[in-house]
Amino acid sequence: MGRITVRRPVERLVVGGARNRRADTLAVEEPLEIRVAGTPLTITMRTPGDDFDLVSGFLAAEGIVGSADDIAAMRYCADTHEQNTLDVVLAPGVRPPDASHVRAFTTTSACGVCGKSSIEALRAERRRYDVAADPLELDAGVLAGMPDALRAAQRVFDRTGGLHAAGLFDASGKLLALREDVGRHNAVDKVVGWALRDGRLPLTGTVLMVSGRASFELTQKATGAGIPVLAAVSAPSSLAVELAEDAGMTLVGFLRGTTMNIYSGEHRIRA
Amino acid sequence: MGRITVRRPVERLVVGGARNRRADTLAVEEPLEIRVAGTPLTITMRTPGDDFDLVSGFLAAEGIVGSADDIAAMRYCADTHEQNTLDVVLAPGVRPPDASHVRAFTTTSACGVCGKSSIEALRAERRRYDVAADPLELDAGVLAGMPDALRAAQRVFDRTGGLHAAGLFDASGKLLALREDVGRHNAVDKVVGWALRDGRLPLTGTVLMVSGRASFELTQKATGAGIPVLAAVSAPSSLAVELAEDAGMTLVGFLRGTTMNIYSGEHRIRA
Repeated sequence: MGRITVRRPVERLVVGGARNRRADTLAVEEPLEIRVAGTPLTITMRTPGDDFDLVSGFLAAEGIVGSADDIAAMRYCADTHEQNTLDVVLAPGVRPPDASHVRAFTTTSACGVCGKSSIEALRAERRRYDVAADPLELDAGVLAGMPDALRAAQRVFDRTGGLHAAGLFDASGKLLALREDVGRHNAVDKVVGWALRDGRLPLTGTVLMVSGRASFELTQKATGAGIPVLAAVSAPSSLAVELAEDAGMTLVGFLRGTTMNIYSGEHRIRA
Repeated sequence: MGRITVRRPVERLVVGGARNRRADTLAVEEPLEIRVAGTPLTITMRTPGDDFDLVSGFLAAEGIVGSADDIAAMRYCADTHEQNTLDVVLAPGVRPPDASHVRAFTTTSACGVCGKSSIEALRAERRRYDVAADPLELDAGVLAGMPDALRAAQRVFDRTGGLHAAGLFDASGKLLALREDVGRHNAVDKVVGWALRDGRLPLTGTVLMVSGRASFELTQKATGAGIPVLAAVSAPSSLAVELAEDAGMTLVGFLRGTTMNIYSGEHRIRA
């Protein structure tokens, strides 16, 4: 697996004070090209490590695979020393993405259905599981403990300040999986991909905790994996809240110390 | 123009304490479909406002346009009440993106040139201006004042906590342009698009300040616009530093209070 951090010289400058050279630890960012049966699908800028999880989660989010059985094999491109190209062999019967797949969002909305209609299309696309029906109830104190648990478990953030984290918790506050990446969508793809490969989808009864903000994309990835509660340290966007409400998901933002904002699905949180 | 913020009810909960409903301000996130001559090119999730800047900057970053003269017209899709589809008419002689453009990154790298070679391809693609030759010198104290100037000028962040900011400064620390967005790449595209439409490219002698981290993508957008100094409040990634070094750009991270880390091009910063 690739390196997660790298040491580099940096000049530390204090205004009106010292200026000296020292070593600094950086989060590694490298491109990963994802191929299906040899055909390039996309390139994502990611932090190496957990690449099989990342690719599995990405393919699940794109609706290409739904379980571990849908993936026959994954392997790095053999004719290079770098592990920056990963080829996926789908199981027999699993429909590969066609040439237009990457552009699916842009080609499905004619001008007559743009605006709100294309938002609806974005929303409807991945409603694979019924998140609204998830009976999970969660103690607010347990939820409030998750940011610290996430930070305590993060291996890299403290050293570089450059990585987003996504953690999956159960209702008792136990951390089931933690993944880090320079891209927050990648961190979530890695968690979902781990769950898919471990046969855990849909992720009923779980909480996904993210270190930053909650965007539409992250909310969509969470509902797409059947996760009933998404909690973020920072603010959600308007569309993240709308999607969470539509899907019957609980969305918590500004989860800091003993306080939190509950934007939707507040019935799942016990005070 | 669209709304930048929206008010929504939220339940504020304090563990072991009160639980009450109030109004909260959220940053708006909505899809924008970008078309060229009626053909859909991409959809980006963005904060409405400054859409013409956003699209101009996006097209510049993709190498489709290089100056304001390359764009004959931009208009919102007429058959909808929402302003979420923007069509661009290129000037005569400007080559429109072909069908494979969106997938250019994935189709230009055969397996024999994957890994490092595709990184090189990513790097080489937009070396339109010679950033290394920019003679800008900058006072460290001026640089240290930019985060506060950016925050003071931000109209939305303080109310929502959900927006990234990108600010363009001159060498005296004067703010030339500020743009905000739920997506940090969009905030930078908006600044570069503003400059393109105002006939200011390349942006020699300027500093681009971003509110978050410095990724490869942001660094690439900055070098692509001829900006010699990129400063970030948080950490850069490994590839951002490599690209900045290659391009001869000054990259500053962890710009907080009176301290900063200079990752490349330290000759431009006077203590």
